[in-house]
Amino acid sequence: MILETIACIGAGNVGRSWAVVFARAGRRVFLWDPSPAALEAALAAIEVSFADLHAAGLLDDPQAGLGLISVAPNLEAALGKADYVQESALEVLSVKQALFAKMDALAPANAVIASSTSAIPGSAFLEEVPGRARCLVAHPVNPPHLIPLVEICPAPWTDPDAVARTRALMEAVGQAPVVVEKEAPGFLLNRLQWALLGEAMHLVGEGYCTAEDIDRVLTQGLALRWAFIGPFEVGHLNAAAGLAGYFGGLAEAMSRVQGSLRTDYPPSEELVAKLHAELAARHPVETLPDRQAWRDRRIMGLRRYLDDAARDEG
Amino acid sequence: MILETIACIGAGNVGRSWAVVFARAGRRVFLWDPSPAALEAALAAIEVSFADLHAAGLLDDPQAGLGLISVAPNLEAALGKADYVQESALEVLSVKQALFAKMDALAPANAVIASSTSAIPGSAFLEEVPGRARCLVAHPVNPPHLIPLVEICPAPWTDPDAVARTRALMEAVGQAPVVVEKEAPGFLLNRLQWALLGEAMHLVGEGYCTAEDIDRVLTQGLALRWAFIGPFEVGHLNAAAGLAGYFGGLAEAMSRVQGSLRTDYPPSEELVAKLHAELAARHPVETLPDRQAWRDRRIMGLRRYLDDAARDEG
Repeated sequence: MILETIACIGAGNVGRSWAVVFARAGRRVFLWDPSPAALEAALAAIEVSFADLHAAGLLDDPQAGLGLISVAPNLEAALGKADYVQESALEVLSVKQALFAKMDALAPANAVIASSTSAIPGSAFLEEVPGRARCLVAHPVNPPHLIPLVEICPAPWTDPDAVARTRALMEAVGQAPVVVEKEAPGFLLNRLQWALLGEAMHLVGEGYCTAEDIDRVLTQGLALRWAFIGPFEVGHLNAAAGLAGYFGGLAEAMSRVQGSLRTDYPPSEELVAKLHAELAARHPVETLPDRQAWRDRRIMGLRRYLDDAARDEG
Repeated sequence: MILETIACIGAGNVGRSWAVVFARAGRRVFLWDPSPAALEAALAAIEVSFADLHAAGLLDDPQAGLGLISVAPNLEAALGKADYVQESALEVLSVKQALFAKMDALAPANAVIASSTSAIPGSAFLEEVPGRARCLVAHPVNPPHLIPLVEICPAPWTDPDAVARTRALMEAVGQAPVVVEKEAPGFLLNRLQWALLGEAMHLVGEGYCTAEDIDRVLTQGLALRWAFIGPFEVGHLNAAAGLAGYFGGLAEAMSRVQGSLRTDYPPSEELVAKLHAELAARHPVETLPDRQAWRDRRIMGLRRYLDDAARDEG
């Protein structure tokens, strides 16, 4: 079954970006938010996003997608015809609990209902929902219309069919889904990101290097491979005998390094203030919107380059 | 003082790539290895590297650089006029100890002598060297002529002037140096890489996801930002109040995640065999040289894209 009609509930940065994801892939989108001002701002931002995608060469016809997005007058109208619901409300447990109870009551019996939550495990707000078998987490990376990864995480009672339909929808609209088989704090992406960030805090906090050095290790080192091959393939290609040779040859060094990591290094007020000052000296807080727009243009350009290279080289 | 004449000692994969780094930037390079067969293979590979750089649009005149590389008949001749020595011999403590004693005796008094070691701290093989004040580690990422990061790590007795001259040389030849102020196992890059890889092993080992999922989290998620902004700037741009706001807002979630990481997860034989099988199903070991060449073309293309984007956008 093709999921044709999508309800995006919550029109903040994440919710409006989801609307772009679905509409640019030809899906009908109903957007709703309890705040009329948020909806108005979201529509303006969505228009900019479509124009930016077009300018970056990532979308031929921005008007077509834009025409598929409607603002719903209320939650009931937003959900009435939905095949799939993407909730992107506040990251507050009681808000999610109340909203999922309502959405489950209002959405068609067949609809999948997914939460964008990054911080709250689905089981914490889904247990009491009568239709909890059709509910799950589909965690995007911000902003989802630029970064394709989606972490699909079922709760213990989620129907495997709801997982399969969500995965198929995400693939159909051009996202890159992974299924997290069991609930883990931070799913996969934030666990990997914060493992690296925790050790980075340790290295800066203990005076081994500066924050700018850490950024350089990524941009001039690690990410030049990770942009197109992940850490396991990096290892597979770094030893003549493949991944088994990589782990075999480096076992001792890796064990020594991993035994001395401090990925739970506490982000003390003093250290955070020092790091913030170092970053703010390069990019003052009042200039962050410009720098964010720059980052988004760079992500679009990078994805276009990577897509072209994949198509050219196979 | 400009370091004009470079000795590259050891002509394996790392040593020959260093020769390309220095020669393409106009430095005179003397290459030496105890094995004549290794030197012959290195010269052939260096010619291919120059041709590949030219084909990728990263180098105008491949012949100019090639003409600056000479094979030295012995260690003494290689070092005789050196301003800077880059050692890339076997990662064996006794080999490094013997070689540094010889190099220190033969190199001009003013020369800096650097080791490419990734696994052995400089202090372990430099302590007894009479000229140890001019010795340090300059750890590249493989292959250095494609990946610019260089980790400069002084031993406790290294003269700050040797550090400063090494950093200036690396910048002058287009590499991206960072200085690691104190010795740490794995320096910076492998600590960050293996923090992430250790948690990835944990996630796959405990059945949360597959190795392919982890690779996807990087290529379709994290690395789309890390290719041009590091983890601290990612945080700075992810909160309206900058990095301080990022750590403030996520403190609880981050602490919960970091408290449950297992970055020292043991790479059991069974798990490594399973991961190897998964990777080898996609890229069999006998096809790895082709895949490595593909990776290198991708790195060159990516760097060219990133360089162009930086020049165009500022």
